[in-house]
Amino acid sequence: MPQPANPEPAPDFDSMLSRKFGPEVANYFSGSPLNRVGFLRHDHTFLSQALRHPSTQFLLCKDLQPLLHATQPGRLGFVKHAVVEPVMGEDPYASTEADIMAVWNSTTYTPQMIFLGIDEKAAEGLRYKNKKNTYSGAPYFAVDVTPRASVKAACEKLIEGLEAKGLGFATGRVMDIEAHDAAIYAEARQLLDWNARNPFCAQCGQPTLSVNGGFKRTCPPKDLARAGSGTAGTLSTTAAAPVDETERPPCATRKGVSNVSFPRTDPTVIMAVANHAGDKLLLGRQKRWPPHWYSTLAGFAEPAESIEEAVRREVYEEAGVYVGRVVIHSTQPWPYPANLMIGAVGQATPEGERIDLGNDPELDDAKWFDFGEVREALRVGTSGLGEEAGPEYKEGGLRLPPSTAIAHQLMVSVVNGFVSAQPKM
Amino acid sequence: MPQPANPEPAPDFDSMLSRKFGPEVANYFSGSPLNRVGFLRHDHTFLSQALRHPSTQFLLCKDLQPLLHATQPGRLGFVKHAVVEPVMGEDPYASTEADIMAVWNSTTYTPQMIFLGIDEKAAEGLRYKNKKNTYSGAPYFAVDVTPRASVKAACEKLIEGLEAKGLGFATGRVMDIEAHDAAIYAEARQLLDWNARNPFCAQCGQPTLSVNGGFKRTCPPKDLARAGSGTAGTLSTTAAAPVDETERPPCATRKGVSNVSFPRTDPTVIMAVANHAGDKLLLGRQKRWPPHWYSTLAGFAEPAESIEEAVRREVYEEAGVYVGRVVIHSTQPWPYPANLMIGAVGQATPEGERIDLGNDPELDDAKWFDFGEVREALRVGTSGLGEEAGPEYKEGGLRLPPSTAIAHQLMVSVVNGFVSAQPKM
Repeated sequence: MPQPANPEPAPDFDSMLSRKFGPEVANYFSGSPLNRVGFLRHDHTFLSQALRHPSTQFLLCKDLQPLLHATQPGRLGFVKHAVVEPVMGEDPYASTEADIMAVWNSTTYTPQMIFLGIDEKAAEGLRYKNKKNTYSGAPYFAVDVTPRASVKAACEKLIEGLEAKGLGFATGRVMDIEAHDAAIYAEARQLLDWNARNPFCAQCGQPTLSVNGGFKRTCPPKDLARAGSGTAGTLSTTAAAPVDETERPPCATRKGVSNVSFPRTDPTVIMAVANHAGDKLLLGRQKRWPPHWYSTLAGFAEPAESIEEAVRREVYEEAGVYVGRVVIHSTQPWPYPANLMIGAVGQATPEGERIDLGNDPELDDAKWFDFGEVREALRVGTSGLGEEAGPEYKEGGLRLPPSTAIAHQLMVSVVNGFVSAQPKM
Repeated sequence: MPQPANPEPAPDFDSMLSRKFGPEVANYFSGSPLNRVGFLRHDHTFLSQALRHPSTQFLLCKDLQPLLHATQPGRLGFVKHAVVEPVMGEDPYASTEADIMAVWNSTTYTPQMIFLGIDEKAAEGLRYKNKKNTYSGAPYFAVDVTPRASVKAACEKLIEGLEAKGLGFATGRVMDIEAHDAAIYAEARQLLDWNARNPFCAQCGQPTLSVNGGFKRTCPPKDLARAGSGTAGTLSTTAAAPVDETERPPCATRKGVSNVSFPRTDPTVIMAVANHAGDKLLLGRQKRWPPHWYSTLAGFAEPAESIEEAVRREVYEEAGVYVGRVVIHSTQPWPYPANLMIGAVGQATPEGERIDLGNDPELDDAKWFDFGEVREALRVGTSGLGEEAGPEYKEGGLRLPPSTAIAHQLMVSVVNGFVSAQPKM
């Protein structure tokens, strides 16, 4: 049975806050070693230097799956600029964003590239000085090398070359790579996926262009693909005025800042709910899970509700249980495709513990489990969803998710004293 | 000076969790009195009954601004079905979603309506029984009555009628209505705005249709507006096959679940950061704010980072300060336009306290303030942004946001002992 990777060890922050609240729980997919230096994403002088620096690492993805290391299990397989150059061209950042927009043609396919950040602890790296500060580190990019459109042949050739060296792309959901690499992949995957899901402007329906190192999609005022279409974008032109056919109809996103231009992250609540006496945990299961497998309840936060309200609403909807006080525990990025898991601990109201699956029929079952049974299952019954339980697991016993899941971390905290006034263990 | 409304009093949840962590802080715009019964949104039999029940309340919005009560300051002005019927027709839920989609024409304007939920504590309400459970309460809807397209005249007439009775729409940012009404308005505003910003499918660029009581926009496979266009949506048709011109090109969102079909909420971090000694608070100010006005730092969470990481990144970017342990405090829905404010408390690392505004030049200033100075400003120097400070405020003293802002609640917690092992007050 493959062991799931351990989550990133909690960072050691010696402070009053950590002495009072305990160490921070760093969940899998968080703990990125990169400084994103997001304020440099619009600076093509920087991106251009970063792209071609000898220290720069490229994470290649094919259909959103990352390239793996040829020999080190659990590691990503980064490549150098020369390897991806045939796919992305010598320097997509050679001109400014404004110049790129001025000659943009929506029918030209450009492989998606994401600037992920710089590793400031790398042995060697780029040194970049702007007007205010100096930034040093090894730059990281992600590149979509899915064989497609004008780069189909180049991508196929690149992939063949990698395969000849023993490198291949991950298959299935990536949950077993080393924590730092997992955080880098999470950033790459979520941004590549967001760009792929949003080629059109939700406000006006026209094609959009990826800018800001892949962190923004803008709705340009012109598109060379319109030349010869016989239609100008402006709604009224005098008969005498020359008509620029490449001009597009107006769009509200060009007038100010609109969230539809920026990457989307969906806040999700996931909660370990204790009973009022503080000795039982509410867990539920979905039909498609293996027998005896349970986890904490979870669901998307809705517009205009606090996380505390979302926790209470979801637990009521899915299990009919009424939750009182809610405390937020820790959070986990979840790039399948764009979730932010907000982990909480809640406690049922004294009269609200009766389980009712009849509101939103999402769960196959929900039950109260004694802390002792959960403790034992955390010891012997955890594994990935498609994997076997451990050797000490006895058939019929409770099965739970692995340590890479925030659900697991929430359960560990609750059965170890998070709810009670005095820690029990 | 108008006093900002008090935030909703913290709910009284007597439990081990509340004794250990203290009472829950319920921020302004949370604390909705409605049960959203989201699992009934697709059920047009329910929506149709809810629409026409005598207990039902309609919140009218014009350009996203809510109707106010004619005589009670700080209250919304709800109306009855007969008032809005000329705008929205007798019953937009008379047929099923499937039947509505089958005859949908993207050029027909339908005023946006949102099903907000039911008030189960209302004196009288609808009783609705489905296969599993019975739900009772006064239904709430929001309706966009902005005069526009085919309902321009009907909306203008409706608004004239209301004005004749002394009712009018709020102006400016709504921050001074009673807490329960504010939470209902937040839900209405965020959903109306999301529908208005997303009339097109980001995946394929075609017009979309609002369904599920306003909580989903679907990309229908057919559109009667295409009849007579001479183009069928399918890419290949044999010469002999009859061509259905109303069929649209394929879209990936129709094959599975895609987040672009659902309302968007942008997670935002806002944080009170203490120094390592635990006696100073980091506050910053924007250029457009009045003199001496400061608040906590804040910014959007980015894709694939935990909230704890987002707090550390934002504080580094905006103020150059390095934050260690982060604890999440409480959250606040913020419907301008779609934010979820995740309030956190952080503590700077011992060597990370030097302020540097040179990374992301977003702030006009950032400074460390003694807890004592913050405590005094919370007593005499708080107000809404456009308002005067209180009578005890002395010119030149620190000014801070009002109690309706989560920034204010975070500061109150920190200067009252959240960071230190023993509460100071």
